[in-house]
Amino acid sequence: MIRPGCTLGILGGGQLGRMIAMAAAQLGLRTHVYAPERDSPAFAVAAEHTVAAYEDEAALVRFAKAVDVVTYEFENVPAATAAVLSAHAPLAPNARALSVTQDRLTEKSFVAELGIATAPFAAVSDEGDLAAALERIGRPAVLKTRRFGYDGKGQATIRPETDPAAAFAAIGRAPAILEGFVPFEREVSVVAARTAAGAFAAYDLCANEHSHHILATTRVPAGVSPQTEAAAFAIARAIADALDYVGVLAVELFLVRDGVRDGGGERLVVNEIAPRVHNSGHWTLGGAATSQFEQHVRAVCGWPLGATGRLGRVEMQNLIGDDVKEWQRILAEPGAHLHLYGKAEARPGRKMGHVTRVFSETV
Amino acid sequence: MIRPGCTLGILGGGQLGRMIAMAAAQLGLRTHVYAPERDSPAFAVAAEHTVAAYEDEAALVRFAKAVDVVTYEFENVPAATAAVLSAHAPLAPNARALSVTQDRLTEKSFVAELGIATAPFAAVSDEGDLAAALERIGRPAVLKTRRFGYDGKGQATIRPETDPAAAFAAIGRAPAILEGFVPFEREVSVVAARTAAGAFAAYDLCANEHSHHILATTRVPAGVSPQTEAAAFAIARAIADALDYVGVLAVELFLVRDGVRDGGGERLVVNEIAPRVHNSGHWTLGGAATSQFEQHVRAVCGWPLGATGRLGRVEMQNLIGDDVKEWQRILAEPGAHLHLYGKAEARPGRKMGHVTRVFSETV
Repeated sequence: MIRPGCTLGILGGGQLGRMIAMAAAQLGLRTHVYAPERDSPAFAVAAEHTVAAYEDEAALVRFAKAVDVVTYEFENVPAATAAVLSAHAPLAPNARALSVTQDRLTEKSFVAELGIATAPFAAVSDEGDLAAALERIGRPAVLKTRRFGYDGKGQATIRPETDPAAAFAAIGRAPAILEGFVPFEREVSVVAARTAAGAFAAYDLCANEHSHHILATTRVPAGVSPQTEAAAFAIARAIADALDYVGVLAVELFLVRDGVRDGGGERLVVNEIAPRVHNSGHWTLGGAATSQFEQHVRAVCGWPLGATGRLGRVEMQNLIGDDVKEWQRILAEPGAHLHLYGKAEARPGRKMGHVTRVFSETV
Repeated sequence: MIRPGCTLGILGGGQLGRMIAMAAAQLGLRTHVYAPERDSPAFAVAAEHTVAAYEDEAALVRFAKAVDVVTYEFENVPAATAAVLSAHAPLAPNARALSVTQDRLTEKSFVAELGIATAPFAAVSDEGDLAAALERIGRPAVLKTRRFGYDGKGQATIRPETDPAAAFAAIGRAPAILEGFVPFEREVSVVAARTAAGAFAAYDLCANEHSHHILATTRVPAGVSPQTEAAAFAIARAIADALDYVGVLAVELFLVRDGVRDGGGERLVVNEIAPRVHNSGHWTLGGAATSQFEQHVRAVCGWPLGATGRLGRVEMQNLIGDDVKEWQRILAEPGAHLHLYGKAEARPGRKMGHVTRVFSETV
């Protein structure tokens, strides 16, 4: 049994690991962060850290033996790494959550097999597959690498005028998936937690806006019907249950509004599953009774989930690249909650921090 | 100018330093904690730490040179330590705040000179002083060491039947102060912050209950009249201004209710000043828009103060000694916010953590 004073191992040293580590410390846990980058932001708030490659088996074994439970902040944990860690310490979420979600084809197939709507998709290994897939799915469509894509990387849009071979070349002819365009009205996400005992708790659905493929703002409530919100929770729960998931996960969804002739209803289509705390859940830190980071720690430790109630209408804005230069203005703004990740250099596209604004809500 | 990425030095490695360090990290600061105890709770959430005595001048100089600004979590920082640190880095709050508040006689005289009510008091260096003081102040009275008293340590109550010499012996015949009893209705405190530019912000007045001389619970609002609350804020501001104070301070006050014949009004009497974040301000972490820890960091860095608005009716309960064994029950309580300090051993009287409960308030 994990109790306060035990050590939580965190694989990955970015801002997500950093915020998990702080939540763990608040609950009396020690933390040990493992990451290859010497200047990992999470090291600065962890009791212990290991600088080593994710493929360094000896270092992984030492790390796993030094902690009581291991979690991670990113879905691209190599299968071999997960296997080594699992052999020496409990790993949560489990290795299957990783294997399913780190491959877009496996992930889409998994969701589809649960009877949950996704964009139309097809596997693409070569030009022949691609031609057949385009025939079936039509254009525009998006060709994505099966693995290691994030924030729009490893993607090429195929429009009516695009040469498919050029698009395939643009993503390095890597094993890929072709996805049909979904004519969505907005992007929403469910951030939820599940415990090993099967307890499940979701935060209110949030609406996300991206800029250059990177999350820019999250707003809660998402402004959907109660039925749609309930459907989103059911989707997240079905996914979490099917994975025997332990921890916080995020399910990104497209909200599609049917035409007036079709009744004008709302439908949800799963875009992506993130087996971890998620940028679209940052609003919960200061905006909900329990932050997603604390919730994740509770689930991973086998503790009861916390209350997910919202404290008001919430807006979360990412500070990307030079946005962070606004820190003084934000500090001076009454009620704005500034979170900075301790990254030295504000490179373009780099997530440097976020700001959460909570407004009182007249129900 | 202090900016994110700079390093905040924190003298003292207990739970207050730990919570200051976490607030600083949230704002993108690095932290360096200096404390003599190898297992200091704050080390586990700090980027750097130094284990050295507060009298180790070489270590203090290295520490001060390694950080951009120094603050502290306890008022008993030796004057020599403050002087060494101040010579190499900005120190906030300043050395005067320490010298005034770490001696009960100096503190009471300072408050009295501001025209603010205190308990009747007299300096006691020997039995002669004590006899004269008892003559003037009457019994019951409390004999307290001038320095290093906290949580009821270094105190002896002199009742009608008490032998004054025995009481003096009980506190080690140290330089002392005799304080008259104040017939208070309840104990309240103001937690407030002041910046170098003179900006001032107070949190709502809170009511404190002690058990065995240790703070047990804090409740906000304190249930006093608006006039009394305004008077408390004015007292805190006068004290902060007079000290040219920078950071969060707490002023503990006795609330005295005059008899019906005297109009039944409320009066405030200053009990103690704490030049630091304070246990009675822990409710602000989760219970106010900005926690006292973040507020302290903002003030110390010369940044704008945050909003002090309360999120509801708040109760903070200290977890002392074996209270911490209730951690599982508290985790399972909807809406309870558990904070544990990472201390290995739950000794009697030791502050192991606290729990904050925020209730919606019908105004």
